[in-house]
Amino acid sequence: MKDQRHAPLHTPTGGHEARGVAALIAPDILDLLDSDPASIPAETEEMHPADLADVAEALPRDRVAQLLSALSADRAAGVLEYLDEDLRSEILETMTTRQAAELVTQMTPDERADVLEELEEETAGDILSEIPKQEREETERLLAYEPESAGGLMTTEFVSVAENTRVEEALAAVRRIARGGRREAMHAIYATDQEGRLKGVMSLHELLAAPDGALVSEIAWEEVVTVPPDMDREEVARLTSNYDLVILPVVDSAHRIIGVVTVDDVIDALVEEHTEDVQRFGGMEALDEPYMQIGFAAMIKKRGGWLAVLLIGEMLTASVMQGFEMELNKALVLTIFIPLIISSGGNSGSQATSLIIRAMALGEVRLRDWWRVALRELPSGLVLGAILGILGVIRIVVWQQLWPGTYGEHYLLVAAVVGIALLGVVTFGSLAGSMLPFVLRRIGFDPASASAPFVATLVDVTGLVIYFYAAAFLLQGTLL
Amino acid sequence: MKDQRHAPLHTPTGGHEARGVAALIAPDILDLLDSDPASIPAETEEMHPADLADVAEALPRDRVAQLLSALSADRAAGVLEYLDEDLRSEILETMTTRQAAELVTQMTPDERADVLEELEEETAGDILSEIPKQEREETERLLAYEPESAGGLMTTEFVSVAENTRVEEALAAVRRIARGGRREAMHAIYATDQEGRLKGVMSLHELLAAPDGALVSEIAWEEVVTVPPDMDREEVARLTSNYDLVILPVVDSAHRIIGVVTVDDVIDALVEEHTEDVQRFGGMEALDEPYMQIGFAAMIKKRGGWLAVLLIGEMLTASVMQGFEMELNKALVLTIFIPLIISSGGNSGSQATSLIIRAMALGEVRLRDWWRVALRELPSGLVLGAILGILGVIRIVVWQQLWPGTYGEHYLLVAAVVGIALLGVVTFGSLAGSMLPFVLRRIGFDPASASAPFVATLVDVTGLVIYFYAAAFLLQGTLL
Repeated sequence: MKDQRHAPLHTPTGGHEARGVAALIAPDILDLLDSDPASIPAETEEMHPADLADVAEALPRDRVAQLLSALSADRAAGVLEYLDEDLRSEILETMTTRQAAELVTQMTPDERADVLEELEEETAGDILSEIPKQEREETERLLAYEPESAGGLMTTEFVSVAENTRVEEALAAVRRIARGGRREAMHAIYATDQEGRLKGVMSLHELLAAPDGALVSEIAWEEVVTVPPDMDREEVARLTSNYDLVILPVVDSAHRIIGVVTVDDVIDALVEEHTEDVQRFGGMEALDEPYMQIGFAAMIKKRGGWLAVLLIGEMLTASVMQGFEMELNKALVLTIFIPLIISSGGNSGSQATSLIIRAMALGEVRLRDWWRVALRELPSGLVLGAILGILGVIRIVVWQQLWPGTYGEHYLLVAAVVGIALLGVVTFGSLAGSMLPFVLRRIGFDPASASAPFVATLVDVTGLVIYFYAAAFLLQGTLL
Repeated sequence: MKDQRHAPLHTPTGGHEARGVAALIAPDILDLLDSDPASIPAETEEMHPADLADVAEALPRDRVAQLLSALSADRAAGVLEYLDEDLRSEILETMTTRQAAELVTQMTPDERADVLEELEEETAGDILSEIPKQEREETERLLAYEPESAGGLMTTEFVSVAENTRVEEALAAVRRIARGGRREAMHAIYATDQEGRLKGVMSLHELLAAPDGALVSEIAWEEVVTVPPDMDREEVARLTSNYDLVILPVVDSAHRIIGVVTVDDVIDALVEEHTEDVQRFGGMEALDEPYMQIGFAAMIKKRGGWLAVLLIGEMLTASVMQGFEMELNKALVLTIFIPLIISSGGNSGSQATSLIIRAMALGEVRLRDWWRVALRELPSGLVLGAILGILGVIRIVVWQQLWPGTYGEHYLLVAAVVGIALLGVVTFGSLAGSMLPFVLRRIGFDPASASAPFVATLVDVTGLVIYFYAAAFLLQGTLL
């Protein structure tokens, strides 16, 4: 193994623990930066760039650039890829344009585009103008794609060979490319025709297994899963997952391969989408930045907007309550159960919405299945509502026995109102919560915009109406 | 390219559309099954097994086994891996034990274990007893691990070479293995010492790039990210994502490699975890089965349990309301705003909880950061509460102007109570919602068990108390 002196950084536990290790190593690196920066490349040679990035993040901010310049440009570019976005932008902005340009030139094309996208437009433009023509044009091409599309995820360094190449020539070509030092995505080799159109694919594994003398066209699979550059990254992730891919070619309208999406970027996209989904389901705009880093004003904006909209929606409940003021006046006991009843509707709606959002995202349920879902949610809601209704009735009867007089002489009627209202509200909540994602998709929104608070607000108003009508019906002539 | 006659199944759009294509191809396959089943292997040769599985799912259920037996065992095993779980179990249970054993023997070890786990224990035992000894023992070993651990995800077919092998020998060995027809995970080659301990790793790419004559030990990276077999799959996913891995070795306590987790299984685990998270955040137990397939009773159980718990929690609101019955009696106008106020608390709590759950899952926020989060949420809650409070005041004043007398002569005081209550409730909601995941983690629960309805219920009770105290304070001597 290569000579190396550091204690293993990759503890089997990894993750948080590895960061702990990074914090332990950082002082050593700091000492070396002061005493013998030239030794740093050898000292850190065996470290994964992700770990070296963790070490960099544990350094004082003004020493990070120093660490990067102690490393080879190639290595520094690798570390930069794993560095926290904000820190990375900060470092690049403090460097001279020339230094920054040298660094980003060494990055893979997709990472280079991502890094430049994070910078202020002017700085990015300056750096871009200093990098070599070929890389500059490549980067400009990538920057033109939507960041959340296949084009935005893809890299342009992949390996293709002519379909009429022989296996041994192809393998020699692959070895030449591998030795060339660029960091091509090499899990798959693409076969192309004379016009550069994608004609087949084989894994590196399959190329190695192929008999000498065979043509690449005989080995390659003709059916290739491809995507257009404007495909949304969620769809890219779904294809990657469905077909167990590690690399996915992006083709233009003439079926020429223009780049590849690698699985690591798909995973990052999945994790980001997940964060967005959870935040939106929580009732806010997705932050798009780490919680501890987003600015105060930006956070207030992303949360306050939805809170205000929901409040305005919820104001309808005040109107409904006013509409039933006479009933409330006569039977104050009714008010006592309002929070209980409307929250049960919100809860059942939140459950149903979360189920359908995921079932839609996974492709288990499609738009045209709405009636199938309704036919499942109606009995579910009725059974769940009956369970809660019975619990509500028990609560009232038990309290009345323990503290006689709590709910007045008509407590059984009150219990019946609460029980029936719970049945109705939970049934309505389940139905409304499950149908909301369909409605959103039908009118062109992302079904995942249906949030728990949104459903709860929707159901609260109806829940009150159901409750008061149940009361009006059952208490007529007694309390009302 | 290999001779093949089918229209391309892999449309660039993929996903749902591909299933549409599967439905179109299914009748052709059905015809062939009747007329000329022997031609099916050649007809479907170029199809991805995932697509062939889609076709199988579009067939009548009783014809699927026929399709599988028309294919080579190896190919059928590939299709089986992509088949819907329920259908797969059904098919295997209708086959003879011998047929089923032949099929699962051809599967990769991890998939074989997964398939057997889904079957009834007795059927699985019968099939297991019929498969060859080596595969049986391998499968039994894998079945011993928790399905949601690294051991449960891993496969045992990987490639390792002795560290003192020369590069050209290693490459020849890899080609031999590749030609052997087993479906080893080959993205990385592991270097081991004489005791079988893991000493290094290199990608196939790096082995190809290595100069002839070099030793594997000189090429391999000594720092290997490894995991123990009992590591939770979420942590495995985090490491895979942090280090951009496509394959991750699982080692025993003596650092011997016992298997590898491949990235496709990590992606499946991520997607499953995401579904669980969304469903739990929606306020229920994770279904663990597709929405359209889970039994009615199972679904009621997973939803009803939490709904009942939440209802019981929410019963506290009834007690609080009763405690303030006197105030309600005197100032009925207060009841009108109850839903508005408590829902705003729940909404802000739901936002804060969703933010912190994700920040924790991503490692952005750790347990000891609770006070940092509290220091962010307190001002956020105050600002958001002030915004909502002002909106609430405006609503009341405007309504009073439009319909004089709506809220009585003390409407300004009522508006002040609502405004102050909103400020307090939203601040409390933000704080409580953000602290809940910390509390859950501290007492040993998954922070992701904090659901939107759970937070809302927690905040509802306090919201009422805040509201009534604000009223008692401000309306003393006027309405109260």
